[in-house]
Amino acid sequence: MIKQIAHIGIAVKDLSASIDLFQKLLDSTVGHQEEVVSQKVRTAMIAAGLTTIELLEAMSPDSPVAKFLDKRGEGIHHIALEVDDIGAELTRLRSMGFVIIDEIPRMGADRCRVAFLHPKSTNGVLIELLEKVVDAEEEQ
Amino acid sequence: MIKQIAHIGIAVKDLSASIDLFQKLLDSTVGHQEEVVSQKVRTAMIAAGLTTIELLEAMSPDSPVAKFLDKRGEGIHHIALEVDDIGAELTRLRSMGFVIIDEIPRMGADRCRVAFLHPKSTNGVLIELLEKVVDAEEEQ
Repeated sequence: MIKQIAHIGIAVKDLSASIDLFQKLLDSTVGHQEEVVSQKVRTAMIAAGLTTIELLEAMSPDSPVAKFLDKRGEGIHHIALEVDDIGAELTRLRSMGFVIIDEIPRMGADRCRVAFLHPKSTNGVLIELLEKVVDAEEEQ
Repeated sequence: MIKQIAHIGIAVKDLSASIDLFQKLLDSTVGHQEEVVSQKVRTAMIAAGLTTIELLEAMSPDSPVAKFLDKRGEGIHHIALEVDDIGAELTRLRSMGFVIIDEIPRMGADRCRVAFLHPKSTNGVLIELLEKVVDAEEEQ
């Protein structure tokens, strides 16, 4: 099940400057920040009401975000949809003809399992599916 | 005050085909549809949890959405932020150096007053501010 839009990812060149800019724009305060080594990005979350803006800065020139910036410049990079069961959603979407980039979900920012859909099957929109990982400890 | 992300606008070439695609992607059903003559676009809203995807199809070759499609192809076009007082927000954002496209708000889709900020001052992201118009009748 698609639960909600978890965040909108925005590719930026200078994370610190963009945190300052989006705090002013959204009249909000930066929250969780993280280096996601597997995706070679630094991320910063800024709340916008019930949804969140995720700012993305490349950590190296071969990061997917660096390639996006080279090609298109700064701007909206992806939409993340929170799902309850990422395996079930990948199966549902694959059966409908959507092209999956990550056949096996991997760990993303903020302890989520994530998988991307290819924009060629989604009207040019890079879609991230994410499922929040709940620790056994938290469940008890 | 910024209340929430009201919707994410996506520019598409064929509204009917994209409604079908996003209904499948979001496991949702299309809602409000409208021709916004002032902006020369046909729009269709599809719920994604608490936020909404707004699909945008150009009504003529000189529509801003047609120009976007010519330049960048299909993809995410803008983020709409719902505000409680669009005049106050425009004043706040102007004082902080953001570049306003619509100095005077105009009527957008679904009976909202809207104004856009220029992406050159917002990291390449086209931002729409919108304030829902409440009829006098509805207030009674």
